[in-house]
Amino acid sequence: MISKNRFKYLKSLKIKKYRNQAQQILIEGSRLIDESMRAGANIELICHTKQFVRNSNHEQLLRFIDNKNILIEEISDVDMKALSDSMQNQGILGLADMPIADDANQLICGNQLILDSISDPGNLGNIMRTSDWFGMKSLYFSSDCTDPYNAKVIRSAMGAHFYLDIFHIDIITHIKHLKENDFTIIAADLDGESVYNWIPPEKWAIILGNEAHGISDKIRKLIDCTITIPKQGSIESLNVSMATGILLSHIKKI
Amino acid sequence: MISKNRFKYLKSLKIKKYRNQAQQILIEGSRLIDESMRAGANIELICHTKQFVRNSNHEQLLRFIDNKNILIEEISDVDMKALSDSMQNQGILGLADMPIADDANQLICGNQLILDSISDPGNLGNIMRTSDWFGMKSLYFSSDCTDPYNAKVIRSAMGAHFYLDIFHIDIITHIKHLKENDFTIIAADLDGESVYNWIPPEKWAIILGNEAHGISDKIRKLIDCTITIPKQGSIESLNVSMATGILLSHIKKI
Repeated sequence: MISKNRFKYLKSLKIKKYRNQAQQILIEGSRLIDESMRAGANIELICHTKQFVRNSNHEQLLRFIDNKNILIEEISDVDMKALSDSMQNQGILGLADMPIADDANQLICGNQLILDSISDPGNLGNIMRTSDWFGMKSLYFSSDCTDPYNAKVIRSAMGAHFYLDIFHIDIITHIKHLKENDFTIIAADLDGESVYNWIPPEKWAIILGNEAHGISDKIRKLIDCTITIPKQGSIESLNVSMATGILLSHIKKI
Repeated sequence: MISKNRFKYLKSLKIKKYRNQAQQILIEGSRLIDESMRAGANIELICHTKQFVRNSNHEQLLRFIDNKNILIEEISDVDMKALSDSMQNQGILGLADMPIADDANQLICGNQLILDSISDPGNLGNIMRTSDWFGMKSLYFSSDCTDPYNAKVIRSAMGAHFYLDIFHIDIITHIKHLKENDFTIIAADLDGESVYNWIPPEKWAIILGNEAHGISDKIRKLIDCTITIPKQGSIESLNVSMATGILLSHIKKI
């Protein structure tokens, strides 16, 4: 049985302020917990309901958890519901250390995706998952993006938090710094050069703008070129995470 | 003011059975209503709250609605909340005819995306939006996909319902019929030929499988070839709508 204090602590992690203080997060659902363990996440505790262990489909995951010597606690359905972020929880969640990116060298390293005020958690999570798929090592979040450790972001990123380094940046300062270091600053937009013909420069950073408002004017002034995914149908725009994945697949194709 | 009967009717459309009976759907939010009107949707009624018209950002949309001679009704915040599918509604929704695809010729026409048991409404909507972007004319839904007229699907498809023809198929019968008509049946999967090198045959149909279980064995037997998006990172899989968009962008690039 989980103690009242422990339960209170876990519940507090649903709020950004307490997550940041504690530097810990909740990870929910079988697939995410499995992927996080594979990614080397530091998981302190797994909580599950009685029902969860009764399902023979979960045996393998429970053995995997057991082999990692992670503390396991059974909790009531009511407690699970209170801790879960989803309407229909799977009956399992974990307490993991928030992954820390502290290598300042990475701020001017590699090629970069810079997220400017992305607000939808599903989009953010999907951008993270897809960025890892295409071998990106880190992601750069402007201060007004949704918190990457929000439960919905974590759920849709499917473990990418434990593979990618997440940097929180002042976006203007960061872009100026990149420009001083010979990066080409690129906007993904509805107008611009077709990504199908575009040859990426040696050092690039692509800025992805807010779902409703696109890239802000302040940032637009710092941009060196704009690329686009040519439209063949009628719909007004692509979803921002979709656009990110498509751009990455063309730029990084092997 | 909206009548009690009318309100009851609108509310009934949140349920699949009543939508199918009435052949009408609710479309919610400014962007979706705007895009649906542009797409030529037959919109019978727009309901908005008092607050909605007070916001000067909405003037243009309201003028656009007015020019189309669509009936407009003001409703209370409480009624809007009861009709809305989102936690924070924007204060506007419309009643539109369900778009009908009835051209049987299209069943063996063009190149096709076949959706096999896709369950997440956000994924379905995003697949629809992206399919239209890449100029697909229709989409083929297996009987156990989530209802494409579900409110969340409609919201994330951003008007694609009014551009694309939606066909509900018996997937096995449909695939056999395509094979008799010289289609190559392709699975999108984690193993297979890289889409970067793959040259599409003249007539193709790509099957996209369920988020958790992939393509079922019954269908797998009917497949001619498998294509994949090569992984460069560590994450286990791509989101199914993301994979669809990336495949389409490579197959249909112009």
